[in-house]
Amino acid sequence: MKLTPEQLKEIKEQQLQSNTTKRVTVPELEKILFDALPVLDHGFIRVVDYMGDDTSVVQAARVSYGKGTKKVSTDAGLIKYLMRHWHSTPFEMCEIKYHIKLPIFIARQWIRHRTANVNEYSARYSILDKEFYLPNSEHLAAQSQNNRQGRGDVIEGEKAKQVLDLLKGDAEQTYKNYELMLNERYDGSVIDENAVGLARELARMNLTLNTYTQWYWKTDLLNLMNFLRLRADRHAQYEIRAYADVMLETVKKWVPITFDAFMDYRVGGTEVSAKGKEVIKKLINGDNINIDQSELSKREWNELMEAFDLKDKLI
Amino acid sequence: MKLTPEQLKEIKEQQLQSNTTKRVTVPELEKILFDALPVLDHGFIRVVDYMGDDTSVVQAARVSYGKGTKKVSTDAGLIKYLMRHWHSTPFEMCEIKYHIKLPIFIARQWIRHRTANVNEYSARYSILDKEFYLPNSEHLAAQSQNNRQGRGDVIEGEKAKQVLDLLKGDAEQTYKNYELMLNERYDGSVIDENAVGLARELARMNLTLNTYTQWYWKTDLLNLMNFLRLRADRHAQYEIRAYADVMLETVKKWVPITFDAFMDYRVGGTEVSAKGKEVIKKLINGDNINIDQSELSKREWNELMEAFDLKDKLI
Amino acid sequence: MKLTPEQLKEIKEQQLQSNTTKRVTVPELEKILFDALPVLDHGFIRVVDYMGDDTSVVQAARVSYGKGTKKVSTDAGLIKYLMRHWHSTPFEMCEIKYHIKLPIFIARQWIRHRTANVNEYSARYSILDKEFYLPNSEHLAAQSQNNRQGRGDVIEGEKAKQVLDLLKGDAEQTYKNYELMLNERYDGSVIDENAVGLARELARMNLTLNTYTQWYWKTDLLNLMNFLRLRADRHAQYEIRAYADVMLETVKKWVPITFDAFMDYRVGGTEVSAKGKEVIKKLINGDNINIDQSELSKREWNELMEAFDLKDKLI
Amino acid sequence: MKLTPEQLKEIKEQQLQSNTTKRVTVPELEKILFDALPVLDHGFIRVVDYMGDDTSVVQAARVSYGKGTKKVSTDAGLIKYLMRHWHSTPFEMCEIKYHIKLPIFIARQWIRHRTANVNEYSARYSILDKEFYLPNSEHLAAQSQNNRQGRGDVIEGEKAKQVLDLLKGDAEQTYKNYELMLNERYDGSVIDENAVGLARELARMNLTLNTYTQWYWKTDLLNLMNFLRLRADRHAQYEIRAYADVMLETVKKWVPITFDAFMDYRVGGTEVSAKGKEVIKKLINGDNINIDQSELSKREWNELMEAFDLKDKLI
Repeated sequence: MKLTPEQLKEIKEQQLQSNTTKRVTVPELEKILFDALPVLDHGFIRVVDYMGDDTSVVQAARVSYGKGTKKVSTDAGLIKYLMRHWHSTPFEMCEIKYHIKLPIFIARQWIRHRTANVNEYSARYSILDKEFYLPNSEHLAAQSQNNRQGRGDVIEGEKAKQVLDLLKGDAEQTYKNYELMLNERYDGSVIDENAVGLARELARMNLTLNTYTQWYWKTDLLNLMNFLRLRADRHAQYEIRAYADVMLETVKKWVPITFDAFMDYRVGGTEVSAKGKEVIKKLINGDNINIDQSELSKREWNELMEAFDLKDKLI
Repeated sequence: MKLTPEQLKEIKEQQLQSNTTKRVTVPELEKILFDALPVLDHGFIRVVDYMGDDTSVVQAARVSYGKGTKKVSTDAGLIKYLMRHWHSTPFEMCEIKYHIKLPIFIARQWIRHRTANVNEYSARYSILDKEFYLPNSEHLAAQSQNNRQGRGDVIEGEKAKQVLDLLKGDAEQTYKNYELMLNERYDGSVIDENAVGLARELARMNLTLNTYTQWYWKTDLLNLMNFLRLRADRHAQYEIRAYADVMLETVKKWVPITFDAFMDYRVGGTEVSAKGKEVIKKLINGDNINIDQSELSKREWNELMEAFDLKDKLI
Repeated sequence: MKLTPEQLKEIKEQQLQSNTTKRVTVPELEKILFDALPVLDHGFIRVVDYMGDDTSVVQAARVSYGKGTKKVSTDAGLIKYLMRHWHSTPFEMCEIKYHIKLPIFIARQWIRHRTANVNEYSARYSILDKEFYLPNSEHLAAQSQNNRQGRGDVIEGEKAKQVLDLLKGDAEQTYKNYELMLNERYDGSVIDENAVGLARELARMNLTLNTYTQWYWKTDLLNLMNFLRLRADRHAQYEIRAYADVMLETVKKWVPITFDAFMDYRVGGTEVSAKGKEVIKKLINGDNINIDQSELSKREWNELMEAFDLKDKLI
Repeated sequence: MKLTPEQLKEIKEQQLQSNTTKRVTVPELEKILFDALPVLDHGFIRVVDYMGDDTSVVQAARVSYGKGTKKVSTDAGLIKYLMRHWHSTPFEMCEIKYHIKLPIFIARQWIRHRTANVNEYSARYSILDKEFYLPNSEHLAAQSQNNRQGRGDVIEGEKAKQVLDLLKGDAEQTYKNYELMLNERYDGSVIDENAVGLARELARMNLTLNTYTQWYWKTDLLNLMNFLRLRADRHAQYEIRAYADVMLETVKKWVPITFDAFMDYRVGGTEVSAKGKEVIKKLINGDNINIDQSELSKREWNELMEAFDLKDKLI
């Protein structure tokens, strides 16, 4: 990740701000506020604003349950209770805003989470940066043979080199032709003083999907956790997971108590279906139980056995 | 509006906080932060948290339009442009959280604005305060004869006294019986040590709709303006308008440039239909135009004439 | 539940419609279309429109996963897979619209589910029906002593009679005074020809929260299931659960395959936290494990043991 | 637009369905149900399902306003009233589902409208079709010199040929390399039996933004109109406007009364700011008024004059 001198200057200026407020503040998060945390080869995540902390969740819950919450003596106990019982609204009382640089094909996955506010850099108005994502060798994976959406083994040697050459070559060529059509280079210089350029809103269609874009993305803590539960999961595509993992670190600094409950109940937890419960009950009871008696499909059976580390029962 | 000693103490404590932050702050809004601004007889509005200011709107717009916004030289010019052309997403970058005390029948109107986060005091868990709304005499209006949703003349004299007596008497009686069923008074004291109380989630059904409730209500600046455009309008019921008017004052302190654009383009502006435009064009042109030539209904005609202060053309 | 002659006539007319369409239809649901299914003493649920069926879920999933879904051979298998892995968008492709009559205090709980479209009967414009909810004796429960939001034992005998008398008396009196203030009875007749009535938007505040209201409520299948998961749950208040239970029956007729998957994975399933998984693993393994070694709170421990029917391990 | 034999067969089968329903149906819309209406060079719009019609809007409004709506004698009058006064919820009672094929860079604009349900063809699972958008010559416009987001004159002659050659050449080359990396052609045939292919979720990043994708897109009538107001507008990019224009035709068939009100009040109407109203009032009055006295910016002044066809007052 390389920041331009203008960006570095802006970040420095933002970080030099020191304002006084009666609002709650989170010193751990303030320490990294505005920092560009690197992701992938040219991407970044920056926390640029936030509202509330763990106590805001508690405060909202206590207004809801009033005197009824007196029995839950600690904030941590209350937050765990809320998480366990899917009480969602108190977590909506905290808000965070990120500035994110990411490849367009990842932006297209990301935006499917609709409950967020977004302002994206517009290639109708401006020229996109000359930056595109190229996987490093350990993430250059073959198509999985048994899972349509997954990755198989890492591709190595000549084949890997060929793939990277193709990706790099096509991205560079399409970007060069983007400039040619625009009659303008990414630094603003004109190519041919006597020619006109194609409209930006048209020229952009020539770019490849690994071109980087950027946006401001603002959401509340509940929806952020919904996003992270799906995107920090091992089934998520590596490239979006790389962003989710960095965001998890920011959540940990921002709302440490909520983060712990989230990791315990959501990320680290598992769901068991009605039929799956019957299987587990029998296993606890020491009864003999196999897939045929379970009414589970093979895939369900294996997912259940994996969730509880019963590797010898995989079929 | 009477606050309990506990509430006064909590407000005092919140206002004594002084934290350091790198985030943008709004000194004018900080001055009234946590204050209980009175509304109606027992209600209030408190700003309890916020995120962003006018510069956050500008910053988001500039990331969207990139170098394309350089021509709009001032923040105010850019914000006015955004407002005029219904560019909505930059206004979503600011967030505000209110603590509000309001009668239940107003809360029912309010909640129809779905794009906000809410934590309401729950009468399933706790006993509601013994406070109910009684209109003061100038707002005690008769049903309008020509407008199904409107108010007519103010009711005065004996009839007014009768109405207020009925409202007060019924609210007090139903509240007394609420306590009786609960076997518990609003201050937590037990009525009959040897009896059991009805479940709170049931007993609450005996309360009248003018009983006060309270909630935390959090929304972004765009949705707040949508709310205020409808609820600070003269067609809105007086009781919700009273809240909207106080909130308008808080928006003015928070984002003064956005507030000005909002008042000019939304609150003070008007919409003219395609057919209405033809009428206005003819009027400017000095042509003779009457309702029959206009294709407008009587109601539309009058609304148009009123919007442009053409009182002599009302029919 | 008593329907007015007008309502019965309207339902009859709607049910006599017979139109031809190229859209998918669901004969089982058509059979009860427009029927007023009774809930509580005066409430009802009517399915008044719908769009899509189980095949619409499958069709949407197949456009998403393209040729990738060929391996999942059956519709039921695909729907189960989607449910298990929280693939939400295919379930959003079905839509349903209900006409519902319900007490106001239940409507207030209900409306907290924001992702639905609502048109409620407005007491600003019209006079509310003279109908209010009175629990029947088996649902007249005392406040639970150990659970702030729950119900305890059923109240019986004199105490029960007293409660019902209070509820009935107050509802009737406040309604009578509502009419008096309006100077108009619920049937539209004027009380005093020489007097004016209070504005409807004001008079309604005198009604108690068990007064019935009605609305059209439209939502997609995903959000409907989210609603039902919370409201058909045994922790939900009985009065809203009564509605959820009837709606579950309509879902079963509408999308039977999705319904089965929903019952298996959501309603009948359970979630196990990361710490809870360790406990279950030890139990399966036959290891000795007690609460002190588990890092679970007493409440968590008991919830886990209950989920797997390990009643002898409750503490 | 070329449909595959499979698609033509599926459409034919869907159109042969003939089901009986008690739901409201719209014969004019049924006529084009499932038809692939062509847009751009390879795109299409298909209406694949719908719920409700103009009477559903009226029915919802009448439940809200109850007996209060009796005075508005006609459905058209009521719908016009709702549109004029921004009563939004009755329009949410109708729902429509489209199947749309569109270039990715347009899909990225489109998806910014968040209040819709979407299932997009996933290039993680499947290989994208070998189809990309190439503007026809009349839409090949130069960048506007005075409007950052607009188009200027049409590009012609050699320059036009050069642009089209670049777009076509790059799209074909990147698609060829996409197949090479996948080791699989778009028709499913394998390129090198002895080689492995790159994971689909990675290979897709090599495609250009004019590649076509497709999705199911479902929304309610209110949000559809919000979309169309912005995207059928002359400020919208031509390529998305082409879709919006076709959708407008489907709305006209579906809900003709709502369509008329929408065209009159939204599409054909204009907004006038508080300051703009003062200018119009003076113009009607025959007073002298120029920009300096108006407090309007030059841009605002010109927009106002254009809205009312006062071309001689443009500055």
